[in-house]
Amino acid sequence: MSDEMACVEAGRNVFERDPFARLLGMELVRVGCGTAVVRMTVDEQHRNGVGTVHGGVLFSLADVAFAVAGNSRGVLAVALNVSITFVKGIRGGVIEAVAREVSLGPRVATYDVTVTDESGEPLALFHGLAYRKRQR
Amino acid sequence: MSDEMACVEAGRNVFERDPFARLLGMELVRVGCGTAVVRMTVDEQHRNGVGTVHGGVLFSLADVAFAVAGNSRGVLAVALNVSITFVKGIRGGVIEAVAREVSLGPRVATYDVTVTDESGEPLALFHGLAYRKRQR
Amino acid sequence: MSDEMACVEAGRNVFERDPFARLLGMELVRVGCGTAVVRMTVDEQHRNGVGTVHGGVLFSLADVAFAVAGNSRGVLAVALNVSITFVKGIRGGVIEAVAREVSLGPRVATYDVTVTDESGEPLALFHGLAYRKRQR
Amino acid sequence: MSDEMACVEAGRNVFERDPFARLLGMELVRVGCGTAVVRMTVDEQHRNGVGTVHGGVLFSLADVAFAVAGNSRGVLAVALNVSITFVKGIRGGVIEAVAREVSLGPRVATYDVTVTDESGEPLALFHGLAYRKRQR
Repeated sequence: MSDEMACVEAGRNVFERDPFARLLGMELVRVGCGTAVVRMTVDEQHRNGVGTVHGGVLFSLADVAFAVAGNSRGVLAVALNVSITFVKGIRGGVIEAVAREVSLGPRVATYDVTVTDESGEPLALFHGLAYRKRQR
Repeated sequence: MSDEMACVEAGRNVFERDPFARLLGMELVRVGCGTAVVRMTVDEQHRNGVGTVHGGVLFSLADVAFAVAGNSRGVLAVALNVSITFVKGIRGGVIEAVAREVSLGPRVATYDVTVTDESGEPLALFHGLAYRKRQR
Repeated sequence: MSDEMACVEAGRNVFERDPFARLLGMELVRVGCGTAVVRMTVDEQHRNGVGTVHGGVLFSLADVAFAVAGNSRGVLAVALNVSITFVKGIRGGVIEAVAREVSLGPRVATYDVTVTDESGEPLALFHGLAYRKRQR
Repeated sequence: MSDEMACVEAGRNVFERDPFARLLGMELVRVGCGTAVVRMTVDEQHRNGVGTVHGGVLFSLADVAFAVAGNSRGVLAVALNVSITFVKGIRGGVIEAVAREVSLGPRVATYDVTVTDESGEPLALFHGLAYRKRQR
């Protein structure tokens, strides 16, 4: 199996075993070595108390993309820290999270994830730090 | 109405209008001026692809406590940035988020939220920065 | 004066009035609308207690690039929050911080700054959130 | 040697080998197991381009307290990630950073550091994540 195919398989496995991603209706759009794209449709039930899409939903979508990208290398990667900045609020529609690897060390790797709305405008900027465990 | 009672009412309003908090089964335990406690029970559907409680669930619970505490002052507060560190993974049970105000300025306020498991052990440390809008 | 020239002038002004940047021997390499490159040479005096370049030095260099980029628009921008991840330690040499604007709103703007060593390898990833005040 | 005395010695060692802390005129006030207090006087040369104490100085002071607290356990701890929020600007005076351990795991530990002015008002809130290496 090629490296790229192994990444696709490892990333997809993590996504498919994720019940919370399923509960929120997420769809895995694409996965590669260190990258992932995840999408979902947000409506009334995904809003917060001020009427916009919940920070927890934006975070969760980005976090799933982060987990898929981070685990695509075939080494168990767990989130240590995330910084997320909310740049624009919306009320609904299709949102997408694109994750890319920024650095990859033996124990630590970092990922940038951008969540955008249908027009491609950024809603949230997510920066994740993962710890890579020795064995799967 | 006393200040404290006004905080309780403003915080509770934000919680009650939050459909995502309801979707995840969160319960508002306590609210005061700049503080909030929110609780939920996590089970199989709240796990991630590696079998522990989803980062998105821990974030969401903390984010709701942050929103309630931040809006308890009667001024619309929206999240600008959050840093979250995951310190321990669990598989299920009752989890609780306790939010407290660390600084309160005219435009910006900061909150620390700790998410703990049933034994009081910290699972996630959440630091939120809110922007306070001029009018509700 | 063209927009670009106005940005260069505004950004350079902030750099030239920064005594701490001078104390550390920083040099402004380039500035544009929402972008800046700042450089310095690090040696023994810039190390920490474990013998590598001090986190405070890497942060300071990135912070100056952030301030120059953020203020290049001619609106006073102050740092609200920064998340910095340290990905590689070095002992000395020339280091460079490159800042670019990621989002620009009326009150809030975000910047990514990467600090690299002489070979272009990332040492630190800096994500800054600035609050833009109404008048200069 | 008691545990507490071992912590004091390990923390002090890290501080004394830190040339950048010396360059900025920092003073180690106190150290214990997982805690540290560091102080410095800030004047004109420590300001930024808008006339207040430089973010890099506030970060550096907090970072030194973080390093002393983190290394007080006798295990080499290196900074992985820091989130810092700036809550108040000042022009000069004595500033103090107080670090305390929030969580301590085998590989990862977290520290909160608050930087205050002479009247005890918070200037910056610093949250640090350290990676603990296997051997010193």
